[in-house]
Amino acid sequence: MGKGRLEAFSDGVIAIIITIMVLELKVPHGTDWTALKALSPVFLSYVLSFVYVGIYWNNHHHLFQAVHKINGRILWANLHLLFWLSLTPFVTGWMGENHFAPLPVALYGGNLLMAAISYTILVRALLAHHGPDSTLARAIGKDFKGYLSLALYLVAIPLSFLNPWIGVSLYALVAIIWFIPDRRIEKQIAE
Amino acid sequence: MGKGRLEAFSDGVIAIIITIMVLELKVPHGTDWTALKALSPVFLSYVLSFVYVGIYWNNHHHLFQAVHKINGRILWANLHLLFWLSLTPFVTGWMGENHFAPLPVALYGGNLLMAAISYTILVRALLAHHGPDSTLARAIGKDFKGYLSLALYLVAIPLSFLNPWIGVSLYALVAIIWFIPDRRIEKQIAE
Amino acid sequence: MGKGRLEAFSDGVIAIIITIMVLELKVPHGTDWTALKALSPVFLSYVLSFVYVGIYWNNHHHLFQAVHKINGRILWANLHLLFWLSLTPFVTGWMGENHFAPLPVALYGGNLLMAAISYTILVRALLAHHGPDSTLARAIGKDFKGYLSLALYLVAIPLSFLNPWIGVSLYALVAIIWFIPDRRIEKQIAE
Amino acid sequence: MGKGRLEAFSDGVIAIIITIMVLELKVPHGTDWTALKALSPVFLSYVLSFVYVGIYWNNHHHLFQAVHKINGRILWANLHLLFWLSLTPFVTGWMGENHFAPLPVALYGGNLLMAAISYTILVRALLAHHGPDSTLARAIGKDFKGYLSLALYLVAIPLSFLNPWIGVSLYALVAIIWFIPDRRIEKQIAE
Repeated sequence: MGKGRLEAFSDGVIAIIITIMVLELKVPHGTDWTALKALSPVFLSYVLSFVYVGIYWNNHHHLFQAVHKINGRILWANLHLLFWLSLTPFVTGWMGENHFAPLPVALYGGNLLMAAISYTILVRALLAHHGPDSTLARAIGKDFKGYLSLALYLVAIPLSFLNPWIGVSLYALVAIIWFIPDRRIEKQIAE
Repeated sequence: MGKGRLEAFSDGVIAIIITIMVLELKVPHGTDWTALKALSPVFLSYVLSFVYVGIYWNNHHHLFQAVHKINGRILWANLHLLFWLSLTPFVTGWMGENHFAPLPVALYGGNLLMAAISYTILVRALLAHHGPDSTLARAIGKDFKGYLSLALYLVAIPLSFLNPWIGVSLYALVAIIWFIPDRRIEKQIAE
Repeated sequence: MGKGRLEAFSDGVIAIIITIMVLELKVPHGTDWTALKALSPVFLSYVLSFVYVGIYWNNHHHLFQAVHKINGRILWANLHLLFWLSLTPFVTGWMGENHFAPLPVALYGGNLLMAAISYTILVRALLAHHGPDSTLARAIGKDFKGYLSLALYLVAIPLSFLNPWIGVSLYALVAIIWFIPDRRIEKQIAE
Repeated sequence: MGKGRLEAFSDGVIAIIITIMVLELKVPHGTDWTALKALSPVFLSYVLSFVYVGIYWNNHHHLFQAVHKINGRILWANLHLLFWLSLTPFVTGWMGENHFAPLPVALYGGNLLMAAISYTILVRALLAHHGPDSTLARAIGKDFKGYLSLALYLVAIPLSFLNPWIGVSLYALVAIIWFIPDRRIEKQIAE
């Protein structure tokens, strides 16, 4: 089974997710700086989510460069990842419109955690299908970044109830860690 | 006539359907668990519809792997399927926002039934174009799952007026039946 | 210049147009048949527009099968067509929510007319680039259906002010005329 | 790394941006010309933004025809461009619904300026990856149009506070300058 349509469908879903989030930036009625300034928490959460969805697209792109074949299990593991990503506009809107209140910030992190877990499941399904000696297996390696992210989310979520800005800062930290695309795969393919 | 653009267009429409459904998950005003809990029926119907649309995409993907050529009739049979799928966000929203009331649950099933019928019509149009000795014809075979689904929908819709949860349970049962992608086609292509 | 991205971009835009129209089908508050019946004009206009956008996609698909090369002028002629198609959700919503009042029905026809004119311009731009002896030129021929559609729209729009249902009936008639995809191109390519 | 998915993803995001802007054209309650006329500023800003997003798609299309390879930095430079383009529906809606008030017009220009800067950054990243002797480098040349646009935006934004129509006119002027796709690249590839 070829990977073409899985890539095309994922590109479509991720493109829509990253774009419809802007619909949460509701056009304000006033025309002065005050009206605009009131939108700043919504805008800030939009930027964070745009970067996150962008990171997922970049990593998905890198990951599938080393993929040669797929199966039914991989299709569902991919849809599972898309499911959690599809909730991003909702958790982003809830966090932004409520000025980073504790529960919305924790839920935002919970969604990031589920997306990260589902990405890990997708990687495992791909590895199981390609075998331990594949380019993919060498490219993934020990997946240090992946486990570090999971750990940081698990710390950030409870701390959000103490002070939501700790949570937001840790989410931003994970984003920075991933900002650089996964060069492991680029290297392995080059070799 | 090549199948490339039909696949690309279908991927686009299905990607949008599966993603805009999340817009029915309206951001609540409160920031506590009560506000979130009030969304649970909408979320539950979102999950069910996400799985259903995912199943249709998977089956469409599998089906077209064995397709070699298309014609005008197939284009319209495919658009007919996309029409019923495009109503999914509406029936999902109506069912979720009304806490699974009888008529919305029955209408949700009616939409599933129409989608299943239109999928069957699409399969018939493809079979007519490929002939009874094609890989496709061997892969489809007797289509037991397809007829079982139609029968279950026909039972579920009237029972929804008795108790909507019977309807929802039967819809979930059909989803579970289809959860595993259509291996018949994978097998036939492998042979 | 290859036609691949023009096709992909057009598929994307048309897929989104045909899908976001369903957002005009607002989820009703009631859960009985009365609530559903109140939606029937919106639903009827949704069906008409779905068929129309489907026809444009089918014809676009057929048209570009005979296209071998594009240029900057063709890119803009295509965007011009997409512009009028992009207004379909708006005119559909206005017509449906106002129960087929005269001006909304006339404007709906005006939009169909502009889409048809822009499609004709696109065809002319493609013909100019491919020459009078191309497969495309032979496939288009005298374009009887195209001119008949323009004439019917020009009749339907003023008659909508007399009785909107005359307008709607003529729009439906044009849709029926085009329902069968443009076999001229299929024939020419086969030859 | 191939450019295929970057093109597909960009096509998807740009297709969605150009299409969801129409959702700002809210269906009016009245059915007469007055109701329609009240929408004219929103419609005018929709047309301007449609043309602008169309220009970006055309230029992106032309640009990537001369691109042979991409890297992680280019992926992010492209996402950065898509970020500013994704804000277009918001700034368009704010400008249109407020009848071209000074601050919304200036912000619209600010968004155009950021999109232009991010496009320039993308071009630089591509040039750095392809080298000074590449087809791409020859095709871009001195990029006179690009610098002229930046200069016109920088003039238009402050003048919008004096009279918003000066700003809008200058934005329209830049659109006219870019309306003809970037023939430099077409020429270089032809050579």
